[in-house]
Amino acid sequence: MTRGRFITLEGGDGAGKTLQAARLSEALDARGMGTLLTREPGGSPGAEEIRHLLVSGSVERWEPLAEAMLHAAARRDHLLHTIEPALEQGLWVISDRFVDSMIVYQGYGQGADLDVLERISTLSLGGFEPDLTLVLDIPVADGLRRAEARAGSNRYERMGRDFHARVREGFLARARAEPGRFAVVDARADPETVGREILDIVAQRLPVPSDG
Amino acid sequence: MTRGRFITLEGGDGAGKTLQAARLSEALDARGMGTLLTREPGGSPGAEEIRHLLVSGSVERWEPLAEAMLHAAARRDHLLHTIEPALEQGLWVISDRFVDSMIVYQGYGQGADLDVLERISTLSLGGFEPDLTLVLDIPVADGLRRAEARAGSNRYERMGRDFHARVREGFLARARAEPGRFAVVDARADPETVGREILDIVAQRLPVPSDG
Repeated sequence: MTRGRFITLEGGDGAGKTLQAARLSEALDARGMGTLLTREPGGSPGAEEIRHLLVSGSVERWEPLAEAMLHAAARRDHLLHTIEPALEQGLWVISDRFVDSMIVYQGYGQGADLDVLERISTLSLGGFEPDLTLVLDIPVADGLRRAEARAGSNRYERMGRDFHARVREGFLARARAEPGRFAVVDARADPETVGREILDIVAQRLPVPSDG
Repeated sequence: MTRGRFITLEGGDGAGKTLQAARLSEALDARGMGTLLTREPGGSPGAEEIRHLLVSGSVERWEPLAEAMLHAAARRDHLLHTIEPALEQGLWVISDRFVDSMIVYQGYGQGADLDVLERISTLSLGGFEPDLTLVLDIPVADGLRRAEARAGSNRYERMGRDFHARVREGFLARARAEPGRFAVVDARADPETVGREILDIVAQRLPVPSDG
């Protein structure tokens, strides 16, 4: 059994990650590749319980490092109980957010020390990392308008425009620093166009041996 | 305002920590020193919510490092929202369990790497540490008998005798390694005797200037 691949979708709120993760999963399924669609925070029963502590309540509820540790605990549970077993079964795993969101939201967004966040990340993941990380990039105003159009809003979406501007810059900075893992996708276009670009990038970066 | 002191009570299940923490708090209060009695996991609203994830459910619920990160997130919340503000007000803070329980339960008990646990501890606490840590030591069989006599049992109490033997040895090993911070108390005696020994140790280790 060939081990599966792990693809993460990252970006600010309202960039279309959840929709594009689902479309990517469907497109790969249609090509006969088994997929598992998951998300962070969450993705396993224990991590979903931790998610509830993270996405609800007041904006000031958690100090950034406490918050990063909750994310790290959830991520380790998600990795061990959902992601690793699926990859070993040969599934392609697609996650709506992963470790880069923690480093960008708590570091660039909330001002926690980036080195400390990297250390927390290493503690929770060991050497594990995604095979490909797609950053869906969209101007802050456009993303917030889309996010606000959805019913309800979660704690992260209520953090203000400056926060979201730092988050956008954080994702772009990480993509520049690690071009081998990251690809940036212009997410302003319509979902079909964005979806096609994502499929092109996946085909190019993670080529699959042809059936013939 | 003189900054308060921070005393932690540690030890296996059934050693009498909760009772002795309350007695110590009362005794110091009776001497006119303001005290705050708290506990881990928990001790602040956010940390108590995390506690619920830790003490309930099946024994295998969390992998040891995920569990340590949940403890660390809770501890950071507890430190920032409860312990530090109280110490700054001049209160003596007494905690029923603290960081040593995490290192001993997840490390000695569940086999997580001790260096990794120390790193998690440092990330959550910075350089902060208790002024005095009292290990209430009791043979495993006696402790479990006392714990079983209580109504209900929590997840840690269900972890088996070998686990609790490693936990006892872990606390004693930490006390030997850091004699300046730790004191070991024989917790087999009756509560009055144990309480008197604890007061003697506190008076000796953390002397208070007399009123006159």
